[in-house]
Amino acid sequence: MYPNDGFRELERQECLRLLAKVPVGRIVHTRQALPAVLPVNFSLDGDGAVLLCTSAASELARAVDGTVVAFEADEVDAVAHSGWSVVVTGAAAVVRDPEEHERLTRTGPRSWAPSPEEVFVRIEPELVTGRELVGGRSLYGVHLSP
Amino acid sequence: MYPNDGFRELERQECLRLLAKVPVGRIVHTRQALPAVLPVNFSLDGDGAVLLCTSAASELARAVDGTVVAFEADEVDAVAHSGWSVVVTGAAAVVRDPEEHERLTRTGPRSWAPSPEEVFVRIEPELVTGRELVGGRSLYGVHLSP
Repeated sequence: MYPNDGFRELERQECLRLLAKVPVGRIVHTRQALPAVLPVNFSLDGDGAVLLCTSAASELARAVDGTVVAFEADEVDAVAHSGWSVVVTGAAAVVRDPEEHERLTRTGPRSWAPSPEEVFVRIEPELVTGRELVGGRSLYGVHLSP
Repeated sequence: MYPNDGFRELERQECLRLLAKVPVGRIVHTRQALPAVLPVNFSLDGDGAVLLCTSAASELARAVDGTVVAFEADEVDAVAHSGWSVVVTGAAAVVRDPEEHERLTRTGPRSWAPSPEEVFVRIEPELVTGRELVGGRSLYGVHLSP
């Protein structure tokens, strides 16, 4: 991300392993020409794609379908000044293939508040980046502050 | 944000009160034409502006100076399916006025890893939005899933 800022860059597999540990991330997209951010629960598909489940009528599904989005998750310890942050950047699309939808109904994320008609949104893991944030005075000399 | 998604919208003052409770948020900007997201520690100025402190040499300071950014913070309880999310959207700028810089040196956020030359970045609170995410089966009938 910012290679000269003193963070430890994480490898793709390490990023995906960390992402799999947390239930909630934040989808970043554009809304009315302004940046928009929304926390959502998610799961990872076998290939590292980020999967969301939302109401078919939701504005989010319409807003991100067919666009490039970023999906971020992190864990930060504000006392130790340590943690990690991972960002998946890629095309987002509502899953329209009936077989794929059926598969995700069995194996994909569950909506925290089920609605009558749900859709899955898939974010392709085209770019997976991450950084480790180890305490400011640690052995590594890396830190959270940008 | 998405008024028809069943979340409770939060008033500006409520948003700022919640923001003041947490030490870390995420700055959303554009980098090489792609959405970029980075967790940072912050504090709030008296007027609700978001203040960051970073190395003068950081890529973040250059990337956001003079652009419109979003700054998001949240607290989510993945067990109770509840929490809140607040977004401040506005122009970001490196503080160049010496008196203002001096004031922030005394009252502004501290970098988690001090560097020899630090700058403050101020994000104007032009748009302050938030939503409360109360458990899917709660009295309010609102939820996190978008």
